[in-house]
Amino acid sequence: MGTEFLKIMDPEEVEEIISGLPFKTKIEKISIEEAHKRVIADDVYATINLPPFNRASMDGYALKAGDTFKATEEEPVSLKLLEVVGAGDVPEKGIEHGTCIEVSTGAPIPEGADGVVMVESTDKKNAGGNEEDNEILIYESVAMGQNIAAEGSDVKKGDLLLSNGTILTPNKIGVLSAMGLVEVPVFAKPKVAVISTGNEVIVPGQDLEYGKIYDINSRTISDAVKTCACTPIHSEIVKDDYDSLKNKINEFKDADIIITSGGTSAGAGDVLRMVMDDIGEVLVHGIAVKPGKPTLIGLIPEGSDKKVLFGLPGYPVAALMVFHIFVAKFLRRAASLNDKNSNIPKFKLNLSRRYRPARGRSHNVLVKIDGDTAVPILKDSGAITALAEADGFIKVPKNVEIIEKGSPVEVIPFDVNF
Amino acid sequence: MGTEFLKIMDPEEVEEIISGLPFKTKIEKISIEEAHKRVIADDVYATINLPPFNRASMDGYALKAGDTFKATEEEPVSLKLLEVVGAGDVPEKGIEHGTCIEVSTGAPIPEGADGVVMVESTDKKNAGGNEEDNEILIYESVAMGQNIAAEGSDVKKGDLLLSNGTILTPNKIGVLSAMGLVEVPVFAKPKVAVISTGNEVIVPGQDLEYGKIYDINSRTISDAVKTCACTPIHSEIVKDDYDSLKNKINEFKDADIIITSGGTSAGAGDVLRMVMDDIGEVLVHGIAVKPGKPTLIGLIPEGSDKKVLFGLPGYPVAALMVFHIFVAKFLRRAASLNDKNSNIPKFKLNLSRRYRPARGRSHNVLVKIDGDTAVPILKDSGAITALAEADGFIKVPKNVEIIEKGSPVEVIPFDVNF
Repeated sequence: MGTEFLKIMDPEEVEEIISGLPFKTKIEKISIEEAHKRVIADDVYATINLPPFNRASMDGYALKAGDTFKATEEEPVSLKLLEVVGAGDVPEKGIEHGTCIEVSTGAPIPEGADGVVMVESTDKKNAGGNEEDNEILIYESVAMGQNIAAEGSDVKKGDLLLSNGTILTPNKIGVLSAMGLVEVPVFAKPKVAVISTGNEVIVPGQDLEYGKIYDINSRTISDAVKTCACTPIHSEIVKDDYDSLKNKINEFKDADIIITSGGTSAGAGDVLRMVMDDIGEVLVHGIAVKPGKPTLIGLIPEGSDKKVLFGLPGYPVAALMVFHIFVAKFLRRAASLNDKNSNIPKFKLNLSRRYRPARGRSHNVLVKIDGDTAVPILKDSGAITALAEADGFIKVPKNVEIIEKGSPVEVIPFDVNF
Repeated sequence: MGTEFLKIMDPEEVEEIISGLPFKTKIEKISIEEAHKRVIADDVYATINLPPFNRASMDGYALKAGDTFKATEEEPVSLKLLEVVGAGDVPEKGIEHGTCIEVSTGAPIPEGADGVVMVESTDKKNAGGNEEDNEILIYESVAMGQNIAAEGSDVKKGDLLLSNGTILTPNKIGVLSAMGLVEVPVFAKPKVAVISTGNEVIVPGQDLEYGKIYDINSRTISDAVKTCACTPIHSEIVKDDYDSLKNKINEFKDADIIITSGGTSAGAGDVLRMVMDDIGEVLVHGIAVKPGKPTLIGLIPEGSDKKVLFGLPGYPVAALMVFHIFVAKFLRRAASLNDKNSNIPKFKLNLSRRYRPARGRSHNVLVKIDGDTAVPILKDSGAITALAEADGFIKVPKNVEIIEKGSPVEVIPFDVNF
């Protein structure tokens, strides 16, 4: 009556196997507008200087610093105003001794000028007069280069700006924009086929006939796949028989990774194991963790490459937990996220009440987060109310006899935040 | 030469004003497939029982528990096998005394049965014989209801499953799927127009003429808007003159919120203030925080409602910091996220080196996260290299004279994680 488990493995052993699973990254060019949260696939060097020209960093007057050497509040220096240059304008004149040009923040520094005096330290000699005649009174001595951001002082053409593997957060995308880039090479998001199996499972929206239940896992796992920076490919529901499942797996030539749920118990419905024994290689079948024992991990040859398949349990809670413990890490790696750039929030909380684990097996307990405490939800992994209440779960290692109320626990959330 | 600031306000005062800004939420129905990370806009009650029928929770044999009363390993009870019912099948027969029906996990319990014995506690009397003749040996006594998940035992029709305001994480979406729902009412994402102003600013991809720089803010702020569960509406770049800006703001009738950057210094380019004085009301103009002093917050009347406008500084670092400190919280509220469901990850780190704040004003310092430490980046807010290096920033309250090396600091990240 069905296949035996390969050999029940400890979670640590399974994690070791997962860390060695193969994945070939691909690179694609995308528009900057689509780049948020993508991972850059090349080093980015500066293609221009920044600022691209000598620029005023204050509103004021560009001048020769030497002309203001003796300027004080009591004895201002008077300079002839030649023109007014706003940000985005091009100066038409150059500075000679005894002259100045009004500049706004961001305006180019005129030829011949080597300092800018802040507008607050100046006055117009003939306020209200004809601008051509205006003389500007300078009340302070200006140093060479003062209030000028020199061309290339921030970024020099050829500087390394962003390293391969950087996540494109808003500020990093700003760096690309500053270079005038409109496209960026990024690692392609792995495509993950998500297949629910089961003769009793039907698609939401259909009439619920006697003996049937609505599919949950293909939706929950697809959404969980998104939280790992991968793209889910939704499948039709597959009947729990050898041919249907084998054909469906073979159909997903385009997918980089396959995740199934259901059909992995060592019981009547154990068709995934038989299919995988025939078309590929089973690396893991059976993990000593509750829930999640029937989990399967295998490889399917594809040309010279191998495609990874995860077979999750059928119960929704079990499927999600196994996903987070064993699958998510691999997907994040396939998506070129690493430990540094994929900080999963860790919720370090305290257990709301004493918890006495059942048996010696390592297991996972659903929890609801309530302020600073994690409240255990003691329902079986088939319960939908458990899904409704839970925010995540905690891991309980094997042979733990009791966790006292108030003990620190680390909650693995079912989702990360906005 | 330009407008004066309204009155420089302390950050706390500004936060108080922001917490009172108006926003009208809208509700829309969307497909479950699009619902990940959206916020549900109604209480969801169960429309069906779960399980929807009495269901086997183990592979085994459905029977009358009373028939197994005396069964032991040594003296098994023999029952006649009537049929085999898999998950998704409908039983054709009912159980009478002395009979049993094989059931898979998830299969409906046949009429007349009140318990299921695990397959592991049974044997076939005539292994290999004709199935019609088969007698099953039961080696243990079965309790009433054992291994049966009764209809409605998990969820009863009419139960409250998810409350208004719940974020639809994968597990919560699973609850909707379990009900067979294909649509869900959610709060519409606020539409946020993002407008860069400046005569010197040009769109990336164009040739960089002398005196011009590429637009950064409309890209960084648009992406930052996404991290607040809002939808950015990208605008063309607007010239720094009264009519252009006023027309552009009036153009965004469809936007729920408007964010501009640039043009808010109390200097030559201060057109936003003039526009807002004419078409609306200025609540804040000038905040005692560095960088970010020229920030403006205003209201624009729209029928009987008022639309909020934020005017950010022009320098990219300043614009992003002001966004995170003052704007993000309002956007999250507008997106119906609350403190409980919008856990922004807090990075509690230690300062990598002694830091001596300049002056007494409260300010923000860019930092790079390096392991457990936050490394200050001491560059001005116009620097693009600062954007490239930074992971976020820390707040330094006013009148802090020194922060010692190793002091605990809280880093506000420029993005949240996957």
